[in-house]
Amino acid sequence: MAIELSDKVKQAIEGKEFWHLATVNPDGSPQVTATWIRFADNGLILVNTAEGRKKPRNMRHKPHVALSWAKPDNPYNSIAIQGRVVDEYTGDRAEADIDSLAKKYLGEDVYPWRKPGEQRVTFLVEPTHVYHQDA
Amino acid sequence: MAIELSDKVKQAIEGKEFWHLATVNPDGSPQVTATWIRFADNGLILVNTAEGRKKPRNMRHKPHVALSWAKPDNPYNSIAIQGRVVDEYTGDRAEADIDSLAKKYLGEDVYPWRKPGEQRVTFLVEPTHVYHQDA
Repeated sequence: MAIELSDKVKQAIEGKEFWHLATVNPDGSPQVTATWIRFADNGLILVNTAEGRKKPRNMRHKPHVALSWAKPDNPYNSIAIQGRVVDEYTGDRAEADIDSLAKKYLGEDVYPWRKPGEQRVTFLVEPTHVYHQDA
Repeated sequence: MAIELSDKVKQAIEGKEFWHLATVNPDGSPQVTATWIRFADNGLILVNTAEGRKKPRNMRHKPHVALSWAKPDNPYNSIAIQGRVVDEYTGDRAEADIDSLAKKYLGEDVYPWRKPGEQRVTFLVEPTHVYHQDA
């Protein structure tokens, strides 16, 4: 069941701080890495990765993810989101998505770390549970 | 199989920045939250939580965890660790551990946010895989 995000959580997602995206490996163990995110036009949370990595494999196998964020200048302000993958796509839109994330996080029009032959893939995440702690 | 950590990874663990600890819920979905960690005396990674929360339930059900870190002033310096829980304990040692973490992260001798009746529990994690990216 989708939920409404608070303004503070929306601001954190719209900000330039990294999130930590957790997925589950095929053997059932967790995997988590620092990640860029933003809102998709439809309000879902957009993450973008590259084919061949663990993240797309994991999200296709088990479409549940979790996201964690802590404010760098006050990590006692932290957010944990759980969600499920509801859509994915590759191709021009996914390539444009990584550029838009580079714009958001680096201020650059084009993602600078593309590797030859790399195929980007976007996953859209619907938040199902949010925990916001602000000590 | 346990692995040797690099000096840079050790320094990150010894630093005061939060890590993001991922565990797996009983339904197989991931859970991740900002967390304090430190090295235990035996060199394992020590995390401390409270009975009744999701983390201890998850780590007992599935003793695999993942940890993610990004340097606040340069998040393109990031570390992802996978590991397995090899020991746990409650009681005086676990209560002392949360105080030692409060000392490390807050500079306070006693953990200030203990709740009445709260029982702390320590989990010791053996790293099995480390990925360090420093862009």
